[in-house]
Amino acid sequence: MQKIFLFLLLPVIGFSQSASVLKVRAYRQSNEHELISDYRQFLGIPNVASDIDNIQRNATWIMNHMRAKGITQVQLLNGITPNKPPAVYGEVVVPGAKETIVFYAHYDGQPVDSSKWQTGLHPFRPQLVNGSVDMGAQIIEWPSKNQSYNPEWRIYGRGTSDDKAGVYTIINAYAALRALNIQPTVNIKFFFEGEEEAGSTHLHEIFEQHKKLLEGDVWVICDGPVHQSGTKQVVFGVRGDTHLELTVFGPKRPLHSGHYGNWVPNPAMELSRLLASMKNDKGEVTIKGFYDDVIPLSEAEKKALSSVPSVEEQLKKELGIRKPERTESLNETLNLPSLNINGIQSAGVGKQSANVIPTKAIASIDLRLVAGNDWERQQQKVIDHINSMGFFVTYSEPTDQERATHDRICMVKKSDGYNAQKTPMDNVMAQRIVKAVASALSSRLIEMPTLGGSLPLFIFEQKLKTQPVTIPIANHDNNQHAENENIRIQNLWDGLEIFVSVMLLHK
Amino acid sequence: MQKIFLFLLLPVIGFSQSASVLKVRAYRQSNEHELISDYRQFLGIPNVASDIDNIQRNATWIMNHMRAKGITQVQLLNGITPNKPPAVYGEVVVPGAKETIVFYAHYDGQPVDSSKWQTGLHPFRPQLVNGSVDMGAQIIEWPSKNQSYNPEWRIYGRGTSDDKAGVYTIINAYAALRALNIQPTVNIKFFFEGEEEAGSTHLHEIFEQHKKLLEGDVWVICDGPVHQSGTKQVVFGVRGDTHLELTVFGPKRPLHSGHYGNWVPNPAMELSRLLASMKNDKGEVTIKGFYDDVIPLSEAEKKALSSVPSVEEQLKKELGIRKPERTESLNETLNLPSLNINGIQSAGVGKQSANVIPTKAIASIDLRLVAGNDWERQQQKVIDHINSMGFFVTYSEPTDQERATHDRICMVKKSDGYNAQKTPMDNVMAQRIVKAVASALSSRLIEMPTLGGSLPLFIFEQKLKTQPVTIPIANHDNNQHAENENIRIQNLWDGLEIFVSVMLLHK
Repeated sequence: MQKIFLFLLLPVIGFSQSASVLKVRAYRQSNEHELISDYRQFLGIPNVASDIDNIQRNATWIMNHMRAKGITQVQLLNGITPNKPPAVYGEVVVPGAKETIVFYAHYDGQPVDSSKWQTGLHPFRPQLVNGSVDMGAQIIEWPSKNQSYNPEWRIYGRGTSDDKAGVYTIINAYAALRALNIQPTVNIKFFFEGEEEAGSTHLHEIFEQHKKLLEGDVWVICDGPVHQSGTKQVVFGVRGDTHLELTVFGPKRPLHSGHYGNWVPNPAMELSRLLASMKNDKGEVTIKGFYDDVIPLSEAEKKALSSVPSVEEQLKKELGIRKPERTESLNETLNLPSLNINGIQSAGVGKQSANVIPTKAIASIDLRLVAGNDWERQQQKVIDHINSMGFFVTYSEPTDQERATHDRICMVKKSDGYNAQKTPMDNVMAQRIVKAVASALSSRLIEMPTLGGSLPLFIFEQKLKTQPVTIPIANHDNNQHAENENIRIQNLWDGLEIFVSVMLLHK
Repeated sequence: MQKIFLFLLLPVIGFSQSASVLKVRAYRQSNEHELISDYRQFLGIPNVASDIDNIQRNATWIMNHMRAKGITQVQLLNGITPNKPPAVYGEVVVPGAKETIVFYAHYDGQPVDSSKWQTGLHPFRPQLVNGSVDMGAQIIEWPSKNQSYNPEWRIYGRGTSDDKAGVYTIINAYAALRALNIQPTVNIKFFFEGEEEAGSTHLHEIFEQHKKLLEGDVWVICDGPVHQSGTKQVVFGVRGDTHLELTVFGPKRPLHSGHYGNWVPNPAMELSRLLASMKNDKGEVTIKGFYDDVIPLSEAEKKALSSVPSVEEQLKKELGIRKPERTESLNETLNLPSLNINGIQSAGVGKQSANVIPTKAIASIDLRLVAGNDWERQQQKVIDHINSMGFFVTYSEPTDQERATHDRICMVKKSDGYNAQKTPMDNVMAQRIVKAVASALSSRLIEMPTLGGSLPLFIFEQKLKTQPVTIPIANHDNNQHAENENIRIQNLWDGLEIFVSVMLLHK
């Protein structure tokens, strides 16, 4: 019911850009088949950041698409490290425009395990579904030219939401204006990253190499989901992110659990004990100093948070959980650093289970960071904790000598990371963008101090001296980062109109 | 050094059966190529108990092999449940013999994950290796007819040790006697099970259906490894075994760990906490009443244990561990019930790791049992513990209603199981078999009260009113139940001679 209600509200347009946005809507309605057909082609190219050949194919597809839509100076931007995912750049110079907006999205996606996707779905063979598969919806045929798309349908595939949706709607917001002969009020630059889901490890190099080209008055980031209430939001910050992979070692060869069980230590049990020692049953991280660096929220941020609609009861129902991990509200917890287990593996379960003592147990954990945290310092706190739990910490496979010397051994693999970033809520450009987005929507607009998720916006601030704002467009239940990722079609159409409004920014 | 030393000792034969055993050795030496070629064929048939088509192919191969070796009454024995792995039966009636020995081994093997096997090795494409791959040995070509087999070489593949080695050496011990025209002193029955690694769930049915056919004076079980010291052993008991699979539930769909991390409970963390609560850091199981039912060792068993050579220091070095899980000796710990994690899985690690809060976390645990334990009671103690840790325990996927009612949910999947079994150390038939085996060996023979591993011998006692003895032949470092399972060739030859001695049992 709630969804339908919002859908009825959304088409109503504010005054200022209303005429242009309505024209764009009509244009989109006449061109839905072409828009979706192009998008399917784009989604069909695998986009895991480590798969460099396919990343290049994505970049080429984007460049061709941009050129076809009249964007100029289309080129790949690289850093200094060879053979890394390039960014795709392009621009539109508007005669008389004095200001420049740089739009950012990323075309790479999270790793995939296609065996986990629902039968019939595949990360890189996009399918149409008449709703959410998590709610029992079914895969349907793509409509023929004389049929229309129901805006509640969803497209399933890796990147549908995170974040090819950003790349695609930004380009096509401009393409719509151009087709309609409506001139943007600002110069536009396009910057599409190819390594975001791998930690944006080389983004600082690209910024360094192309500082001049990337100058602009504000960066608008398209990534992440709209608020769980369905309300659109403009976001002023993101959490930082880094990862650790922990491997605890047992016997050098897998052992029969009967002949050795009770005598040979079990690495899965030792890893469990180690992980359990990191949080108490109130969901608080018990690692020494974990919350020490946190900068408290500003009054403006507290005020903004207090007007965000509460979604806790809706989420509990939707997610099938009774008790949240912590007692604070969702938004309060997203303004704290977190420690989360992304995955655990030791030997096999189910049909792969055998009567063994495993040789090792691995956990992948991610650390989200808020303002004040430093990603390397945060990693070190976890490592010091592992040490304090009686583990010898090493960064490579233990030698026989190390095995003979230490009771417990944990190999730590540090990933790169980046810190949180926050744009002050009274930033002038940011507030003008808030107005532009609000004018395209009749429903409430949320000004959100920070997204729970992460984007490398810290690097933008550091290298480009710019304070970006983020406009997410994906449905909140898009399964990003996991199997069955999807985008609700109405969210694509809303995204088009929002970016059109921003391209028609008023003083 | 130790291995070579033992190998030099083994060829020396005791007085009683020496002439026949030496003849058998000469026969084996002239027929090694044919013996190993047949064994390779047998090992090439996949033998996971759930793979019923291939299980049938194994059974057919065994029947053909038995018939070719002159064994009579060869047939499949089934229980009452249709489409389950059959046992293969055969017999040899010796004119004038008053006693009957029934030989048991099993032809099914543990589940396999071929991706984990060392490059070049595969569970069902047996390979020859010039030693142990864990010690750096290499895959080599099978020798041509004019070359001989080095007894230190190993054959790699599922079932090489556990327990096609038993099936194969028992049949060929008889085949050797027959080829040499040496008459066994006892009647022989052969019984080869096809469902041991799946918990022997239907063995009691087969026993019920064929009680009369399976009568004998003693059952001799061939399964498991020789002692870690390399010394052969006759074993008077086994631990029981049962399993539980625990699934802890998180959100209904996988969530972005940024947008929800800190607020949505993480099932991998909850499972870790649950598992960690089951043992203290001394390796003692902390589940209420876990050790309550244990019947203490008899004086005879204690005495036998005290004369088993200590292998702890050797094992620590070999396995690369510094501190055992418990302070007791290996043999003492094998006379206690155990709780062991066979495997854990939640979402992915390494290249499969994504920034998610997983939907569930699964642990597979096995419970080994000693005399006094009941497998269903032992399962219940664990389930009661899970409950006491604040989990709602269910036996099927939780409903929305259950998710809305309970803070923490754990789905338990109970496997079948069986209790421990012990034959008194002064059992007359058992002691006659000890003598027969000892006479075939000049090295010390260990009389071991119980094996750490499990066999369904409890069912033998219960259904057939017989108290079996076990004679393991595999090398202790055979990687049974795991990747890279192997048998050292000398252990096959020793097995042949040991079973020949038993078939020539004296009064």
